[in-house]
Amino acid sequence: MDQDRENGTALQPKFDAAGLITGVVTDAATGELLMVAHLDAEALERTIATGEAHFWSRSRGSLWKKGETSGNILRVVELRIDCDQDALWIRATPAGPACHTGARSCFYRRVEDGKLVDER
Amino acid sequence: MDQDRENGTALQPKFDAAGLITGVVTDAATGELLMVAHLDAEALERTIATGEAHFWSRSRGSLWKKGETSGNILRVVELRIDCDQDALWIRATPAGPACHTGARSCFYRRVEDGKLVDER
Repeated sequence: MDQDRENGTALQPKFDAAGLITGVVTDAATGELLMVAHLDAEALERTIATGEAHFWSRSRGSLWKKGETSGNILRVVELRIDCDQDALWIRATPAGPACHTGARSCFYRRVEDGKLVDER
Repeated sequence: MDQDRENGTALQPKFDAAGLITGVVTDAATGELLMVAHLDAEALERTIATGEAHFWSRSRGSLWKKGETSGNILRVVELRIDCDQDALWIRATPAGPACHTGARSCFYRRVEDGKLVDER
């Protein structure tokens, strides 16, 4: 265990082999889990600097400001990091649906008896 | 885009190159983000079969029932999956602190002005 990373006050994000850290976004008002995406060092830097969530798009292979085309940006209310600093919790105010499908949250389906039940 | 994976009712988890899928655990009662960990196919199967959260421990390289030694199990209230089926949302009732540090949540530090502020 890295005691300093767990107990310290220094931000030392542990990026994985691909240079990414997991970002979990919840709605700051309702607590609902909106989406999970990944941030590289630049995305984290821009998220902190601008107060708007940025990610690394693994499919496009580029920096991705959430909402840059849809307008559905995520304004950061609070940013937290976990014990071993390999996951970020972004509490945000969403300007619109967080999911590219138009759903409020990407987690619109419940797993039940091995099947998925749509909750939209 | 895989339309079937996004809109279908079949559970088709998209495991990464290491055979893992991200699992986000929130407290079903309070909505608080408790922890982020990873599940392999067996961990997902056991989570569904037992109603208790199981993960793949990347540090130990083995199946890990959360709470197997501490007793702080996570009883699953609802399981959801995201649009592209590469992340799971586990809404759970925690039997105790979710973090190995003894904190209720692993996300006990807030990022502020490039430093971490302990909220415990």
